[in-house]
Amino acid sequence: AQSSLTVFGVIDAGVSHYSTKSRSWGLAPPQQITHSQTVLSNSGYNSSRLGFRGTEDLGGGLAASFWLEAPVANDSGATGIANFGRRSTVSLSGPFGEVRLGRDYTPSFWNDGVFDPFGVNGVGTNLIAVVNSNLAASRALATGGPLNGGLSAATDSYLRTSNAIGYFLPPGLGGFYGQVQYAFHENVDTGGLPGSPSQRGRYAGGRAGWSNAQADVALGYGESTLTSTFTGGEKIKSLNLGGSYDFGMVKVFGEWSRVRDVRDGAAALAPRLTDRYDGVMAGVNVPVGPGVIRASLARVNFDNGNGLPDSDASVNKLALGYVHHLSKRTALYATVTRIRVHNGHNNPTVMGVTPLVLSLPAVLPQPGYISTGGLEPRSAMGYDFGIRHAF
Amino acid sequence: AQSSLTVFGVIDAGVSHYSTKSRSWGLAPPQQITHSQTVLSNSGYNSSRLGFRGTEDLGGGLAASFWLEAPVANDSGATGIANFGRRSTVSLSGPFGEVRLGRDYTPSFWNDGVFDPFGVNGVGTNLIAVVNSNLAASRALATGGPLNGGLSAATDSYLRTSNAIGYFLPPGLGGFYGQVQYAFHENVDTGGLPGSPSQRGRYAGGRAGWSNAQADVALGYGESTLTSTFTGGEKIKSLNLGGSYDFGMVKVFGEWSRVRDVRDGAAALAPRLTDRYDGVMAGVNVPVGPGVIRASLARVNFDNGNGLPDSDASVNKLALGYVHHLSKRTALYATVTRIRVHNGHNNPTVMGVTPLVLSLPAVLPQPGYISTGGLEPRSAMGYDFGIRHAF
Amino acid sequence: AQSSLTVFGVIDAGVSHYSTKSRSWGLAPPQQITHSQTVLSNSGYNSSRLGFRGTEDLGGGLAASFWLEAPVANDSGATGIANFGRRSTVSLSGPFGEVRLGRDYTPSFWNDGVFDPFGVNGVGTNLIAVVNSNLAASRALATGGPLNGGLSAATDSYLRTSNAIGYFLPPGLGGFYGQVQYAFHENVDTGGLPGSPSQRGRYAGGRAGWSNAQADVALGYGESTLTSTFTGGEKIKSLNLGGSYDFGMVKVFGEWSRVRDVRDGAAALAPRLTDRYDGVMAGVNVPVGPGVIRASLARVNFDNGNGLPDSDASVNKLALGYVHHLSKRTALYATVTRIRVHNGHNNPTVMGVTPLVLSLPAVLPQPGYISTGGLEPRSAMGYDFGIRHAF
Repeated sequence: AQSSLTVFGVIDAGVSHYSTKSRSWGLAPPQQITHSQTVLSNSGYNSSRLGFRGTEDLGGGLAASFWLEAPVANDSGATGIANFGRRSTVSLSGPFGEVRLGRDYTPSFWNDGVFDPFGVNGVGTNLIAVVNSNLAASRALATGGPLNGGLSAATDSYLRTSNAIGYFLPPGLGGFYGQVQYAFHENVDTGGLPGSPSQRGRYAGGRAGWSNAQADVALGYGESTLTSTFTGGEKIKSLNLGGSYDFGMVKVFGEWSRVRDVRDGAAALAPRLTDRYDGVMAGVNVPVGPGVIRASLARVNFDNGNGLPDSDASVNKLALGYVHHLSKRTALYATVTRIRVHNGHNNPTVMGVTPLVLSLPAVLPQPGYISTGGLEPRSAMGYDFGIRHAF
Repeated sequence: AQSSLTVFGVIDAGVSHYSTKSRSWGLAPPQQITHSQTVLSNSGYNSSRLGFRGTEDLGGGLAASFWLEAPVANDSGATGIANFGRRSTVSLSGPFGEVRLGRDYTPSFWNDGVFDPFGVNGVGTNLIAVVNSNLAASRALATGGPLNGGLSAATDSYLRTSNAIGYFLPPGLGGFYGQVQYAFHENVDTGGLPGSPSQRGRYAGGRAGWSNAQADVALGYGESTLTSTFTGGEKIKSLNLGGSYDFGMVKVFGEWSRVRDVRDGAAALAPRLTDRYDGVMAGVNVPVGPGVIRASLARVNFDNGNGLPDSDASVNKLALGYVHHLSKRTALYATVTRIRVHNGHNNPTVMGVTPLVLSLPAVLPQPGYISTGGLEPRSAMGYDFGIRHAF
Repeated sequence: AQSSLTVFGVIDAGVSHYSTKSRSWGLAPPQQITHSQTVLSNSGYNSSRLGFRGTEDLGGGLAASFWLEAPVANDSGATGIANFGRRSTVSLSGPFGEVRLGRDYTPSFWNDGVFDPFGVNGVGTNLIAVVNSNLAASRALATGGPLNGGLSAATDSYLRTSNAIGYFLPPGLGGFYGQVQYAFHENVDTGGLPGSPSQRGRYAGGRAGWSNAQADVALGYGESTLTSTFTGGEKIKSLNLGGSYDFGMVKVFGEWSRVRDVRDGAAALAPRLTDRYDGVMAGVNVPVGPGVIRASLARVNFDNGNGLPDSDASVNKLALGYVHHLSKRTALYATVTRIRVHNGHNNPTVMGVTPLVLSLPAVLPQPGYISTGGLEPRSAMGYDFGIRHAF
């Protein structure tokens, strides 16, 4: 029974400093408040994890496999293998591709991660991913609590989803790849009542791309249902396009993302209201001996669906870092980032971006902004330096 | 240290549909309500799990061994290795047999499981096991909460028990086998107060049987204490007899079970009240090439100890399924079941049987019945189809 | 990836009996109340655990390593791998020594454990360790709850600490060894407010010693911050000295410990109040064939910082046991202990010592003392007998 099992993981720990600045706006008397914090952090370069996986060759090109992967809060030891929230799947694969059942990344998240020079970890995390996870978490909480019972700090149906069936194209299609995923809402159908069953928790999405030795480009789309009633509901619809090209001396990355928060009114006359988050990101990896210099620049614009003047906001992020490889499995790293928020009072929950938000387990207590008393999120900075060991 | 350790497990996932029908009875106006649900399920064929076990040969026929086995909610990844609720034991064994300390199955549960063609998993689960676990859970909750701190969806002292000492006869007794188990209640003795310590949580039971290559038959008995006071208390007493015979072309299974819920009044004149649950089950496994057809038919009668006319109830269950083995470790399966409840209003909590109730972790949110407003549990149906991969 | 990984653990289970006696004091009418309990226990000889660890040779004398170790409540299976509360670290080591990041034992705890003939497990646990963990837990709970989020039954910053950076001297210094550790408080600095950030949760300590084949001696010191304000605060300051000498036929152990609970008043005129706990312990291990006889005698005096007459208390403990090794990995053991408390009403929370308190996970429900109604903690006894299996 044992032969096909692999126990694997990453333990990544470092010292991180986070600082957020809130400033008065409009007619409020000039004021500025800075909150900061220094912590022993985890996952600054790669997400700390512990997992169990295996594959069985069934003959005839068929294979069965499983993958159980838990997040690890190794700075405090607080969470153990409390959940397999990173991945929990069983698959049947063959010439037809792969059918995968369980909890996994959503297809619409992949571009936010794959084309981020910082691999969506640490203070350098792709700004687009941070805004999108803020949106997913805040809307889930505002509409009845975390989806899927609270994993992933309420970012489910953005970052990952549970109760899902996925299908992946097989390799060997001339560089083309693709996947689709459907997650059951699992709500009870109460016998013919209008609007039953609720679709809350349902996710459907897909991703298609093409890659060769140098280039990689992919398009992703997904829909997450937050509420559904007889007459209306709320969905987050994500569309993104990402790519990378490896010139040898430098690898460049780029992403464009449009996420819409669409709310249909309950009454026949109620208008559809669509908030929009448009993001762009560009970055590089520059190999330097046994190390890599990493940099990215990103911007997300918030377009308020209410159409009022001056109701929008935007945020910019610059991240710079260096990774020094002691071996294939062990590396030292340092990253520093700077964030600027414009008109943050228009959407402080989503656009008030701290150095790092995308965290599972959500055990890194970062200082928030103050958005009452005439203050708005204004800027943030942070750094990580640490060690990553994989096994 | 490593040599004797085995990491093992099962990941089983599928799509399941559950439906329950409640209907009006007596003088209530005719009405019928159906609730249904479609989910990504786990454990439809075998219980999903992840475990660690090992044995050390101590010489002289002696051996020490341990076994830690966790349930895994692989459809959602929600529970990780949150507990070793399936088994958590250390043993010393030798020519004298085996002494086992910790958490394990109760001896009185074994017959409900071993002689079930569906292995007490999925919608085909032995009806007797479902009724018994409903009874154990509902009486535990009604008398102060789950025993042993909440594991096993309150079915402790029925399905498994913690804090136990078990003894097993050694092999080589001409086919005879047997075990006894005692679980400490662990309550505090408050120095001479009458009725102290409470016996709540105590379990004592045993099982004895005989088997050869074709036949297997066993008798089990157990007592679970729910409350105990100076003058009375409540116990669930389980007696069951099961057997199987393998004819080669077909393997037949059968079980008879009598479970009594015995409540002694607190006052000297208060009568003893005994509810009784009598069950019979018969089933077959029919090998068909690399697959097996499975079927079972079962009935449980509820005999209300209050002696009033028309206070009883009964439930019937028919289950049919097929398992297709892709290898020894990997299988595809499909099961369908049909349940009918008679006079369900007399005991909706225990006799209102849904397709599957016996669940650890209790993460499969099945639709319940409606037993208010003149309605009673009437019938249920369900199906599973999925994949089981063992490692 | 797999080659360097070791899965390891201990499963230790036994039957334990605990009994505590409370007695009236002063002018209260003579009365005595005994509470007792018999349980299936874990960790009577060694702490039950399950862990994952590994080391990578980076060349040039450098190595990276990780260690994740979870407590296991194997008597009930209740906690699984819910946390890596025993240890959760990643290290970089070389000729310079070792830098270790994460959760680990505190340096000031080591002497309480290393020089205890009973290895701080079971009813024989070093009295000094029990008093110190009682103090740490009760002061943490009294000043805002467990440090580090609740691990270790609130004994954090005494027994272990999270979010820490540790440094260890390299081996090969002629028998000298040493370590220092600093744990981040991780509190938010709220921009210039006086007393911000709070230092609550901060730990700093160190340990230095010398050992050869027969002798071992070490000095430890640590400070745990419980509260900090603009003008005052509370710290627990631990100083201890321990040693052992192996004469071959007998190994002797000894420890001296002084722990101060220092509270600075918030007002300028408020006095500094220092409670003091002075402990001494002496013990032996006597090898007898494949077994070891163990014994220890200890005393802790409580010196109340308020300076009132008769406000102090003391506690004595005698423990005796035998361990029979079936193999290097498997042992049977038995321990019995007797505790006497003097003037326990002056500090029942800390000085009311039960047979075993130092428990992680805190799942052994031991009977407490009664310290109301004119009663005070008076004495306790307990025994363990069980089996320990390591893998």
